[in-house]
Amino acid sequence: MENFHFYSPTYFCFGRDSEQSTGNLVQRFGGTRVLLHYGSGSVKRNGVWEKVTQSLKNTKIPFVELDGVKPNPRSGLVYEGIELCRKEKVDFILAVGGGSVIDSSKAIAAGVPYEGDFWDFYSGKPVEKALPVGTVLTIAAAGSEGSGDSVITLEKGMLKRAASGDALRPKFSIMNPQFTCTLPAYATACGITDMMAHVCERYFTNTRDVETTDRLCEGILKAVITEAPKVIANLKDYQARANIMWAGMVAHNNLCGVDRAQDWSSHGLEHELSALYDVAHGAGLAVMMPAWMQYVMSHDVQRFAQFAVRVWDCDMNFANPEITAAEGISRFRAFLKSIGMPSNFAALGAKEADIPKLVATLGLSEQHKMGGFVKLGPSDAEAIYRLAL
Amino acid sequence: MENFHFYSPTYFCFGRDSEQSTGNLVQRFGGTRVLLHYGSGSVKRNGVWEKVTQSLKNTKIPFVELDGVKPNPRSGLVYEGIELCRKEKVDFILAVGGGSVIDSSKAIAAGVPYEGDFWDFYSGKPVEKALPVGTVLTIAAAGSEGSGDSVITLEKGMLKRAASGDALRPKFSIMNPQFTCTLPAYATACGITDMMAHVCERYFTNTRDVETTDRLCEGILKAVITEAPKVIANLKDYQARANIMWAGMVAHNNLCGVDRAQDWSSHGLEHELSALYDVAHGAGLAVMMPAWMQYVMSHDVQRFAQFAVRVWDCDMNFANPEITAAEGISRFRAFLKSIGMPSNFAALGAKEADIPKLVATLGLSEQHKMGGFVKLGPSDAEAIYRLAL
Repeated sequence: MENFHFYSPTYFCFGRDSEQSTGNLVQRFGGTRVLLHYGSGSVKRNGVWEKVTQSLKNTKIPFVELDGVKPNPRSGLVYEGIELCRKEKVDFILAVGGGSVIDSSKAIAAGVPYEGDFWDFYSGKPVEKALPVGTVLTIAAAGSEGSGDSVITLEKGMLKRAASGDALRPKFSIMNPQFTCTLPAYATACGITDMMAHVCERYFTNTRDVETTDRLCEGILKAVITEAPKVIANLKDYQARANIMWAGMVAHNNLCGVDRAQDWSSHGLEHELSALYDVAHGAGLAVMMPAWMQYVMSHDVQRFAQFAVRVWDCDMNFANPEITAAEGISRFRAFLKSIGMPSNFAALGAKEADIPKLVATLGLSEQHKMGGFVKLGPSDAEAIYRLAL
Repeated sequence: MENFHFYSPTYFCFGRDSEQSTGNLVQRFGGTRVLLHYGSGSVKRNGVWEKVTQSLKNTKIPFVELDGVKPNPRSGLVYEGIELCRKEKVDFILAVGGGSVIDSSKAIAAGVPYEGDFWDFYSGKPVEKALPVGTVLTIAAAGSEGSGDSVITLEKGMLKRAASGDALRPKFSIMNPQFTCTLPAYATACGITDMMAHVCERYFTNTRDVETTDRLCEGILKAVITEAPKVIANLKDYQARANIMWAGMVAHNNLCGVDRAQDWSSHGLEHELSALYDVAHGAGLAVMMPAWMQYVMSHDVQRFAQFAVRVWDCDMNFANPEITAAEGISRFRAFLKSIGMPSNFAALGAKEADIPKLVATLGLSEQHKMGGFVKLGPSDAEAIYRLAL
């Protein structure tokens, strides 16, 4: 175990009708004038907008609105949001939606009190100050409701980059599993894949003696593996939706990964795919994560065997642990396919001919590699993209 | 799953030398004048006091001291602490020790701004306001470093009672596993038993569809089962101590039990034992918990079979699940014995003749039963004490 800090001060309000607390929670955390930020209108069609604005009205909290957040949220809307908040003297940002809306809200929150370009935070500058953000979550996936992370795509060059900091952690998150029951199967499966990736990218580590967090990681994955098929079979299964929703938060608030070097290469490899083709993040991960696993497995066969045995119920092959290790990856692939995820570039609509471009955009070199488990240079990245064909 | 709120705003600073941040963290959370609260002097002998006070001096934070907290902390010292804080205009309480010291600190923190008797909070009044508390943890056990709970014994009548509230959650907790390396084997095993109890009293529930939190509970228990024998075999095993320490926090900050009715009967039954005989809380739990399990097993054999299979690696007996269920309890008993815990009243120094007194102090009646999994009246409590003989 490594030394660490862990700070997760978000107030979670979970369950049926929990959105009725929106106004009270904004007040509790000091909001007097709100920016209501959301996507392309589904929250209006499914009644969430109505319920949330009613709660704000009940507590007499004025609000302005900014809609139009798209999956893989863009910098353009963030600039617009920052300007609007300054003009309207907004002191609290309320995200109503999934990870994209929350990430866009966090970017605006960081940008408002900052004199420079908000993109600085997505180029490595630590976020030390931000407007308070609250969330009403409608998609279980990104874990952004409980994390200090945000990912934005810069339109100029389609660069997808992340910012992090405790200042970005939401003050509160309202999690009503009913809101996720209208999500179609494909988007649901993308979310499930994303949360599994959040665990896996913590799980595969070179840090030794991390049994407690290993067991937490494995527990989250086991729960998702049990609940996901129930949700896909019956999209309105409230209890399975609820289990998946809480798993998605725990998967990414870092409780299960605090004490270790992590490896976010699959996310990195995927970000280039979704920036170039605008594919769903989870679908891209379903293709890239098993390919990454296959490429790095030989680096630590025993860890992959542990993954296979503890998460995928494989029998341990003590004579040939690499057979067990490979079987775990294979079951992971089969699971993703069973919930309707794509398995390769073709299914994503990605093209072999673009691989050099994808690799180039990653900006890797022999001096600047990525990854905490296995360090990847440009030729490694290319090989992994080719494994995903 | 039930609706729930979850709020764990404690800042955790974990690892070697983490106590060097004490002064900075007190400042960060608004402390300008500190009560340093600790036990019977072990923190002076093992150097922890020296390191912590040095950090306070480095940041020029003045402090007054109150020592003398004993296991099963008493009301007398709490009254003394409240008076001292008022007289000295203390605005921050720093607990240096284990669960008893932290619980005593929380009681003082709740009492200082309250005009009535602090015992009101231990008689059911919700705690809404308290001085901020920080902790430097030296014993992995109670989980009080990450919880909003406190247990105090009222000297008059030796009543052991609990108070709860988000206001009691520590602002920060410093967790240096090195500090736990001087703890003898017996006290270490008591702590391990306590944290396992915190998980079990959440795990056995009548709430359905709690797969995610079930898996988290099972993961914590598996980790403790793996790490505990390493610690007992080598008390200075830093890595095993570190895993146990983080498990102890996660076991009790309620992340793994938010969504369910819980059952704290084993704790209730044990509290009377430790109040009457002043035995270590963990040792009392080692005796009472398996007895409680044996008594209530028939209420939900499948849940006990799940516990046996997933936590204790038992083979499922599909024809006779109760055999598997009983085997799980039996392995739990054997595990507790293997780490040096007592198995019955005699080993605790408790007396059969006192059972009526223990039952009477619980204050149960047919109208006022305890427990969320199985409701226990006085005759049930008596039967469980007898199973522990």
